Amino acid sequence: MGEFDLIARYFAPLGGADPEVRLGIGDDGAVLAPPAGDELVVTCDSLVEGIHLPAGAPAVSWGRRLLAVNLSDLGAMGATPRWALLALTIPEDDTFWLEDFARGFGERAREARVALVGGNTTRGPRAATLTLLGTLPPGSALRRNTGRAGDLVLVTGVLGAAALGRRLWDRGVRAGRRLEPYLDPDPPWRLGPFLRGRATGAIDISDGFLADLGHLLEASGTGAEIEIGALPLAPGLDRVQGGDLELALAGGDDYELCVTVSEERLGVLTAGARDLGVRLTRVGCLTSEPGLRLSDGGRGVPTPRVMGHDHFRSVS
Amino acid sequence: MGEFDLIARYFAPLGGADPEVRLGIGDDGAVLAPPAGDELVVTCDSLVEGIHLPAGAPAVSWGRRLLAVNLSDLGAMGATPRWALLALTIPEDDTFWLEDFARGFGERAREARVALVGGNTTRGPRAATLTLLGTLPPGSALRRNTGRAGDLVLVTGVLGAAALGRRLWDRGVRAGRRLEPYLDPDPPWRLGPFLRGRATGAIDISDGFLADLGHLLEASGTGAEIEIGALPLAPGLDRVQGGDLELALAGGDDYELCVTVSEERLGVLTAGARDLGVRLTRVGCLTSEPGLRLSDGGRGVPTPRVMGHDHFRSVS
Repeated sequence: MGEFDLIARYFAPLGGADPEVRLGIGDDGAVLAPPAGDELVVTCDSLVEGIHLPAGAPAVSWGRRLLAVNLSDLGAMGATPRWALLALTIPEDDTFWLEDFARGFGERAREARVALVGGNTTRGPRAATLTLLGTLPPGSALRRNTGRAGDLVLVTGVLGAAALGRRLWDRGVRAGRRLEPYLDPDPPWRLGPFLRGRATGAIDISDGFLADLGHLLEASGTGAEIEIGALPLAPGLDRVQGGDLELALAGGDDYELCVTVSEERLGVLTAGARDLGVRLTRVGCLTSEPGLRLSDGGRGVPTPRVMGHDHFRSVS
Repeated sequence: MGEFDLIARYFAPLGGADPEVRLGIGDDGAVLAPPAGDELVVTCDSLVEGIHLPAGAPAVSWGRRLLAVNLSDLGAMGATPRWALLALTIPEDDTFWLEDFARGFGERAREARVALVGGNTTRGPRAATLTLLGTLPPGSALRRNTGRAGDLVLVTGVLGAAALGRRLWDRGVRAGRRLEPYLDPDPPWRLGPFLRGRATGAIDISDGFLADLGHLLEASGTGAEIEIGALPLAPGLDRVQGGDLELALAGGDDYELCVTVSEERLGVLTAGARDLGVRLTRVGCLTSEPGLRLSDGGRGVPTPRVMGHDHFRSVS
């Protein structure tokens, strides 16, 4: 099968039926008509075999995860996801792999009402890049440089589940629900639009909770105090085990959000998250004093040596 | 160097100073404010080492070519290029390679006034994907399905120069201007916006002139007659040599445009192209009779067995 047949067979059906897509897959570019006055939010994230997903990871996970990691970025910006472009590189024309990939991708795309509007397919080492476009009202994007001293720090979901899944995979486990957070993360992107005008800032914590919180602190010019006992650790992790705590704080690949909010908005945010089925936990607060301080029941705890998981540095 | 250092050092400076970029590199997504009422044109093309560019191709060519191939697609749609997202995968943290890549990318980006607004950097087999966004007035995109019988068929630039360069590279040539059309194509993207409202259709011919013309014919529901003697062959190619003619007709990698236009608009188009420094040659016409017919001074010529160059099929 050549590139044109691949696209026609597997990817054209993922185009959806969005009236704002004036021209979808099949020309030199797609033509989109964004809602008048809205701003566009664009993000682009890749999966590379052996870096983000291991060799042998199911094709359906590739498709689902590719959309999930980009939905997570849009969620962190508060944007409503809309359109996607896919660049896929695969070693051979493998019908089964492509069918499963397209099925996984399509499942997540339908959930999020994302229309695939373009892309390309090339033979080469297995990798996929997705560019995802979203929209939001002007000036409403959530940023990482707008946290203020006194704001509460919240996290969605649980911490360390993906790193735990990765560790199980590395130990040879090939089935079971505990692999899911690693192979097939389910980010709380639906919360993003609700956070607009309510949260003071947000960041995706996929590089590791402490590393990404650190980015928010640096950008916002604040410090933070985080209470270890409050952290929503993944089932199976125990905060009194140093290794477990490190997985949760710095293991990475948790496609969750860290959100900052003023104390008076906490109730609104918590109620809204509950309505959307998103777990939201208060874990600390921003401080005017710079630096990140961890405490456990009032007692100071040293920060881990490694704060996160860098997909550039992680292999060498 | 980790991903964040790489981005800060090499890619953040490519962000330009576009007031419509409300938020550029450095958060979970970029925020753009497209001109009110304009439509958006989006395209996404990849370079994979060993497929689109050979191992050992200069890094500056990677940077320049990546932008060029995407500018070519936007040109074929008639869009004005605006913003780009870059996904780069490289085997190691190679300062010299990254500097040269960023320099090449930056040169083309400044020429085209494209602002780099986001992306990601991963360790892995060398490959780069660019998503390029452009804008145009509503309904003015050039398409491949709008050619009409009787329209003239034009091509920009010359045919076969890239395939000739590729052949020289494959024979061990590593320097000289004849490699440029292959390593560092210079598509006539500036012509795109001028074609709006003037051409009846357009397509990028990077898969090979005959293959891409074939796509236009199929989409438009027309046939075409092409006069071999009129084709603007690259210097060094001779139309009486069968192999040379095949390089020109089907060699691929020529980032040029095939444009259709009504006879009465030919003069306007030719004059406009001349003002922009773009060579535009009339090579035939669309016909109501389906199929592609080649002739040489009135005498029919068989079409080549291979019509183009498929980056999926081209290696196996």
